Amino acid sequence: MKHDELFALLRRRGVLWPSAEIYGGAQGLYDYGPLGAALKRRLEEAWSAWFLGLSPDYHRIEPAEILPEAVVRASGHLENFTDPEVTCEACHAAFRADTLLEKVRPEGIDGLSSAQIGEILRAQQLRCPSCGSPELSVPRPFNLMFGLDFGPTGKERAYLQPETAQASYLAFARMWDVGRHRLPLGIAVIGKAYRNEIAPRQVLFRMRAFTQAELQIFFDPESFPVPFDRVRAERLPVLRVGPRSRGEESPEVVSAEELVRTGGLPEFYVYHLAETVRFYRDVLGYPAEAIRLFEKSESERAFYNKIQFDVEVHLESLGGYKELGAVHYRGDYDLGRHSEGSGRDLSVHPTGRPPLRPNVLELTFGVDRNLWALADLHLGKDGERTRWKLPAFLAPVAVGVFPLIEKDHGSFARALAHDLRAAGIPAQYDDASSIGKRYARMDEAGTPFCVTVDGATIADGPEQGTVTLRARDSRAQERVPAAALAARLRPFLVPPLPPGA
Amino acid sequence: MKHDELFALLRRRGVLWPSAEIYGGAQGLYDYGPLGAALKRRLEEAWSAWFLGLSPDYHRIEPAEILPEAVVRASGHLENFTDPEVTCEACHAAFRADTLLEKVRPEGIDGLSSAQIGEILRAQQLRCPSCGSPELSVPRPFNLMFGLDFGPTGKERAYLQPETAQASYLAFARMWDVGRHRLPLGIAVIGKAYRNEIAPRQVLFRMRAFTQAELQIFFDPESFPVPFDRVRAERLPVLRVGPRSRGEESPEVVSAEELVRTGGLPEFYVYHLAETVRFYRDVLGYPAEAIRLFEKSESERAFYNKIQFDVEVHLESLGGYKELGAVHYRGDYDLGRHSEGSGRDLSVHPTGRPPLRPNVLELTFGVDRNLWALADLHLGKDGERTRWKLPAFLAPVAVGVFPLIEKDHGSFARALAHDLRAAGIPAQYDDASSIGKRYARMDEAGTPFCVTVDGATIADGPEQGTVTLRARDSRAQERVPAAALAARLRPFLVPPLPPGA
Repeated sequence: MKHDELFALLRRRGVLWPSAEIYGGAQGLYDYGPLGAALKRRLEEAWSAWFLGLSPDYHRIEPAEILPEAVVRASGHLENFTDPEVTCEACHAAFRADTLLEKVRPEGIDGLSSAQIGEILRAQQLRCPSCGSPELSVPRPFNLMFGLDFGPTGKERAYLQPETAQASYLAFARMWDVGRHRLPLGIAVIGKAYRNEIAPRQVLFRMRAFTQAELQIFFDPESFPVPFDRVRAERLPVLRVGPRSRGEESPEVVSAEELVRTGGLPEFYVYHLAETVRFYRDVLGYPAEAIRLFEKSESERAFYNKIQFDVEVHLESLGGYKELGAVHYRGDYDLGRHSEGSGRDLSVHPTGRPPLRPNVLELTFGVDRNLWALADLHLGKDGERTRWKLPAFLAPVAVGVFPLIEKDHGSFARALAHDLRAAGIPAQYDDASSIGKRYARMDEAGTPFCVTVDGATIADGPEQGTVTLRARDSRAQERVPAAALAARLRPFLVPPLPPGA
Repeated sequence: MKHDELFALLRRRGVLWPSAEIYGGAQGLYDYGPLGAALKRRLEEAWSAWFLGLSPDYHRIEPAEILPEAVVRASGHLENFTDPEVTCEACHAAFRADTLLEKVRPEGIDGLSSAQIGEILRAQQLRCPSCGSPELSVPRPFNLMFGLDFGPTGKERAYLQPETAQASYLAFARMWDVGRHRLPLGIAVIGKAYRNEIAPRQVLFRMRAFTQAELQIFFDPESFPVPFDRVRAERLPVLRVGPRSRGEESPEVVSAEELVRTGGLPEFYVYHLAETVRFYRDVLGYPAEAIRLFEKSESERAFYNKIQFDVEVHLESLGGYKELGAVHYRGDYDLGRHSEGSGRDLSVHPTGRPPLRPNVLELTFGVDRNLWALADLHLGKDGERTRWKLPAFLAPVAVGVFPLIEKDHGSFARALAHDLRAAGIPAQYDDASSIGKRYARMDEAGTPFCVTVDGATIADGPEQGTVTLRARDSRAQERVPAAALAARLRPFLVPPLPPGA
C-alpha cells in the first residue's frame, strides 16, 4: 500500500494515530491504540527473546530516560548531536539542510561541514519550500536534545536521552559488580529516545519520541568467541563500501564465511550480523529479498564506529529501502569517554585475564519503524479481503472465539474465551454480525486463528465438544476439541529463540 | 527490613540502583537491573490482566508521554500543578513546605494557601535543615512539570506528562470512534510520569520519573451496571472521612454491601474498590491486615474528585502506611476541560441513549511503589536464608535448572533450560558452586521453583527421565518427569484474572 492509504487504515483500525489529535496533533508524536500497543509489546518481547537468547550473560535492564548534563557532555552529545538547520529569512520556517538537498544530492551530506553545505545550497539556488523566498540562512548546527531544568533551583540541567545506549554505558560498572566478572557481558535496553527533530515526517520514521531496542555487548577485543559454525553458511545480502549509490541498488548475496574470509570482517561481527538478519527474516518474516545490509563508509558513519552496517528493508509505503536497525562496532570510545567524564576507571579485571577496557558491539533496532514495516510488508489485500499476516506470536489477538448463534452458543464461547485467557492465551470473544464479517475483522487485525462454537460443541459437552478451528493464512478449517485448544495453539504463540542457543 | 538495609540488598542484587551512579547519581532517578526490570514488566502484565479482565470494553493503549502546552493549560496543570516551595535565604537550599512542617503538623497542609502555610512556618520558628539559618522564604508555588522547547523555533512549548491520565482523555474521541459506541469504555495506560520534585526521597516513593498504571473508565452517570454480587460479601478495610488522624490508625473492616447500604457510596464505586483490594491481596499477596482504604476528605482531595479512597499499605521499611494507589471518581471534569480547550465537544451518543458527556472513574496504581512493596512485604529472612516470596507469576526467573554435577549432567540441564525457555517459561541454568548455594541465590531472587538433573535423569533418558523439583516456600521436593515440567509449572506462571469475569 501507499503511505497515506496505509496510515489511514492503521488509524481507522485504532493501531496508531497522531498524539493530541483533538488539539490538532503534536508534530512527531504518535499514540498506539489497542492493536498497536499490543503488537508493540509483543515485538519488544520477540526482540528480547531472540537477542538475549544469544547468551546467558546478556541481560535486559530498564534505566531512567533522563541524563544529567555531565553525561551528555562526556558522551559528546552536548557538542555534536546536531543537525544542520536552515531557516527562511522571510517566513521563519525551519528546515533540515539534508532534506532541502535530498532531491539534488541523493548521496546525502554526511561528513560535510556547515560551510560546505551552505555552499551547495547557494550553488543550487534553492528556495524556501514554504513561501518560495530565496532568502535561506546559512546552515547552523541545531542540537536535537530536549533539555530540562532539573530540580527546584533552575541551575541544574538534564536531558531526555537521545538514544538508549548511554544508559547501558552508565550501568556497566554496576552490572559488572552484580554479574559473574566475565566478558562478553551484554546489556539490553528497550526504551524511549527523544529527539527534537527539525522536521518530523513519515509517521513512525522520524518521530520526536520513539522506542529503541538496543543491545550493547561489552567484550575483550583480544578474544570474543562466537559459535560461528551456526551461521557459517548463512546468506547475507550486503552492499559493501565502494562505488555505489545510496538509492535502490540491490545487494550482493554472500555467505557469512566469505564475508570473514575474503571480506575482511571479524568473525564476531559477521556472526551478530547473521543473527540479526535471521531475526528480521525468520522471526519477523520479512522477505529475504527485501533486506539489504548497507555498509557505511568512514565519512558516513560516526567517527568512533569502526564497522557499521545498517539493516535496510525495502518498503513500498516509503518508496524504497529504509533503515530499520544497525550493527555498530564502537571500539572502546564509550567507556573511555565515561571513564574520563565520571572520573571512574571503567576498566575491568575478568577472572584469569589482565585488566582491560572492553570494546562495544551495539545491535540497535527501531521498534516503531519495525512496527510500520510489519504493516507495510504483511498487511494488504488478499483477494477481496484485507489480511494482516503477522507471525502468530506477534498478533495482538491470538484467537477469535465466535458463537455460531449467540443465544445458543454464546455462553459456551464466552467461557471458552475466558479459559483461554486464564491459560495465558490472548483470546477475544466476538458475536457481532455474521461469521464471515467476524473472520474479516480478525483477518484485518492479524489474528492467526479463529474458533467457532456450534450446536455439536454444546451437545458433546465441555470435555468432548469440538470447535471449528480456522487458520488465517491457509483458511483451512478443522474440528478440534475445545479442551485441547490451549495446548494446540500455544507452540505458535511463543517467540522463537535462536536455533542452537 | 529497615529502609537502608532493604535498599542495600536490592542494590547489591542488581534489582535497582541510582541512575548515573558513576557520576554520583541523579536525584530522584533510578535504574532497574535485570531482576528489577523483569519483575516490573511482570507486575505491569499482572495489573493489565486483572483490570482489563474486568470488561471486554477496557483496552490498553500506549500514548506519547509529551503533552503540548494547550493540553496542560486546559487540564489545569499549567496553573495548579504546584508544590509550595520554601528556600533558605542564606544557603539557597530548596524545600517542600509540607516536608518542613511534617513533624510539627502531621495532618499535612492540603487545602492551605501559601499565605497560611507561611504563617505556620513563622509561628513554628523553623530553621533551614541544611545550614540552620532562620531566614526561610515565604512559600511560593513551584510548578512540578518539566517543560520542553518543542520544535526548532524555540517558540513552541510542551511538557513531559505529569500523569498518564491526560493521554487517555486525549485518546477518548478516537477510541470511541474505533470502538463499539457503548459505555462504559475503559482506557488503560502504563507509562512514565515526570515530576520535578523539589526534594525526591525514599527511593521509589518520590521519584522525578516514575511509572503509573492507570485505568480511566468513561461511563454514563445515569447507568453504570456492575456485577455487584461478585463482591457483595467482600470485606473492605476502610478509614472513612471524619475525626481520624493521618497516621497509624487502623481501618474498620466492613462489607462491600454495607459500604453501599449504610455508607452512602454508589455500587459502581464500591465494586471497583473491592476488585482493587482483591488485586493487592489475592494477586500481589499483600497481607489483608496491611491494607487500608483511606478516604480523602473534601479539603484533601482535588476539587474535581467526588469520591477518593487511597489504597495504603503498611510498610516496615517506610515506617507506616504508604499510598500505593487510589480510586478516584472524577465526574465529568476532564472531558469538560478538554472539550473547552480543544474546541471539540467530547460528548458521545451511545447506541440507544441520548447524547451525554461521560463521567470518569480512575483506578491508579504506582508501579515503582508496588515493586518496593513487593520487596518490603515478601523479601526477608526465613531462618538462615533470605527468601523473596514473590507470587510465581511475578518472579523474574520461574525455574532454576541445576546439574548435580556439571560435567555429567550439565548438557542435559542446559538443554532442559533451553527447552523450557522455548516453551515460554523463564528458566535459568546455574552450575556455579554447591546446590545449596544455588538454592540460596534463587530464593533471594524470588525464583519459585528449582529443578536438579542427576544421574537417574540421564539414565532414564529425555522422555522418561525425572528431575528433582523443589518449591521455594515449602521446600518440598518431588521427582517429576523432565518432559512434563512445562505443563506442570505453567499454571502458576499466568497472572490471575478476576474470578467470574
